[in-house]
Amino acid sequence: MTPEMQILAEDFLAAEKILIFTHERPDGDALGSTFGFRAVLRSLGKTADVVIPAELPNRYQQLCTGAVTQLSADQLADCDLIAVFDCATRERIALPSGIDAAQLLDEHKSVNLDHHAANQVSAGKNAVVHTASSTAYLASVIAMNLQPQIPAEAATMFLTGMMTDTGRFCFTNTDSQTMMQAARMLEAGADVESISNHVFFSKPLRIARFEAELMNTELQLACGNRFAFADVREELLEKHQVELREDEGLIDLLRELEGVVVAMLVCRRGDAFKISLRSKDSRYPVGPLARKYQGGGHDLAAGLTLHLESFEAVNAFMIREIGQLLDGDR
Amino acid sequence: MTPEMQILAEDFLAAEKILIFTHERPDGDALGSTFGFRAVLRSLGKTADVVIPAELPNRYQQLCTGAVTQLSADQLADCDLIAVFDCATRERIALPSGIDAAQLLDEHKSVNLDHHAANQVSAGKNAVVHTASSTAYLASVIAMNLQPQIPAEAATMFLTGMMTDTGRFCFTNTDSQTMMQAARMLEAGADVESISNHVFFSKPLRIARFEAELMNTELQLACGNRFAFADVREELLEKHQVELREDEGLIDLLRELEGVVVAMLVCRRGDAFKISLRSKDSRYPVGPLARKYQGGGHDLAAGLTLHLESFEAVNAFMIREIGQLLDGDR
Repeated sequence: MTPEMQILAEDFLAAEKILIFTHERPDGDALGSTFGFRAVLRSLGKTADVVIPAELPNRYQQLCTGAVTQLSADQLADCDLIAVFDCATRERIALPSGIDAAQLLDEHKSVNLDHHAANQVSAGKNAVVHTASSTAYLASVIAMNLQPQIPAEAATMFLTGMMTDTGRFCFTNTDSQTMMQAARMLEAGADVESISNHVFFSKPLRIARFEAELMNTELQLACGNRFAFADVREELLEKHQVELREDEGLIDLLRELEGVVVAMLVCRRGDAFKISLRSKDSRYPVGPLARKYQGGGHDLAAGLTLHLESFEAVNAFMIREIGQLLDGDR
Repeated sequence: MTPEMQILAEDFLAAEKILIFTHERPDGDALGSTFGFRAVLRSLGKTADVVIPAELPNRYQQLCTGAVTQLSADQLADCDLIAVFDCATRERIALPSGIDAAQLLDEHKSVNLDHHAANQVSAGKNAVVHTASSTAYLASVIAMNLQPQIPAEAATMFLTGMMTDTGRFCFTNTDSQTMMQAARMLEAGADVESISNHVFFSKPLRIARFEAELMNTELQLACGNRFAFADVREELLEKHQVELREDEGLIDLLRELEGVVVAMLVCRRGDAFKISLRSKDSRYPVGPLARKYQGGGHDLAAGLTLHLESFEAVNAFMIREIGQLLDGDR
């Protein structure tokens, strides 16, 4: 525990009614950390809720139930601690309609727990540990400080966050502390079969067919086969009735290719193109490249938006950029 | 450590020249446990070799170097301990030409370390811990008993075995002991980036294209979509220049489908059909079914051979069998 995490632990202990928020389009870490912590707070007899205004991704719907989707001004006024987990900026907080981030964080006692280096949420109190693998890891450490015997349900959720954010212990953020904490989650009764079947072995057939066709028709390689990319066209998504945000792991199909160092997915968003980037090698980080064009993310997982006229223009632009990145120190 | 493992540890400590064997078509656990243990024995100043007569799968060739492929009678006579790791029967031991299992195990001081419940190797001394996730886990426990500061290279190999046999900590054999031991491997310097890039993110492009086409053309569902299977036809393998044994993870493409409980791959072997089975749910084990037809394996991962006339006949036969399994206790 860092001193900042200790301060957060004390705030949680002192509070009775807590609302936990996270980022839009929540992933496994956002959901694992918030729902896990909710279970721990409730086991301590507190009133705790996770606020997520949108429908959750399918794979998480059975693990994560009972999110609060709407919030009245009265309900908000009634709570005595606001927590934001795994969210890098105020703009990214998933907020119910009628509530803004300033109101939430500046007019209430508030805490911010995250592992994104560039976190700018600036709540009342902040614990940002950018060396941590996941927010779920951090939340579980605070949780076990508050309650050494965390409920099995919480352990399952925290382990979900650790597993998703480390790519099932394969990404370079995997460290012995996370692995040790994962072991403690298993001791606390975390249900691996449930996590596996819901989160990792739960690909809808239409997504499997979409992925197979994407790999057959759109996979491209450049930069001496070290850069793999695919354009995700609207027609293909429509044909298979897939929404891109359902398919968190899609980019891994490119990342897992032999010899590939950087993987990219491109999709259209209105009149711009949204780009997801992954790197397999810490010598070639994609985070700085994304930030150069007002994007963001980690060294090995980042994203940006480009205002160009076509998929082809985006591909050509990115082949140049990634080529420079890969040739930079060779 | 079980008492049997303690006895093996003492035998390793007493020996000076050790040869380690494993099963044919070695997987990540076979290679991780043997090469990891070799590194530990060498760090103790002993002469140790892993004997594998065939070429290793591509993904392991950079992690596992220097296997002994041939063995003279003199070399064999010169060694003072034979170890067999992760191998369930004498018939499955990968042996260099001119050497038979009886000669190896009965005419030498020999030990057998494994986690397969049905192990029948019957060496001089045997430690079979069927509750262990992997042989690499067992080997790493013995190794740290011999040498608390195991070399980083050994830690990398042991972690490889634990990760591959637990499906990156997703299969139901994942337990807190393995996870804790994995944390110790990371502390000992295990190189996750290297494991990931070589073992998990190293799919050759031709295999990716083969898989995409297989999913597009051969994926079938039965038993209320709870049974997914695919016939792996020779023509498709040839088209993409893929050998099935290169593609350890192929069946996971079926297993990971939502709602699927049992996954099956069928391929032709001479005039018979080789069948691989996976179950996602311990209530529906495929091991007993495989054994009913002289196959073998674990509850959730098993295989068998059927002498039928066509892919279609095999599929029909297995749809009946799996249907009975899935309907059995519902």
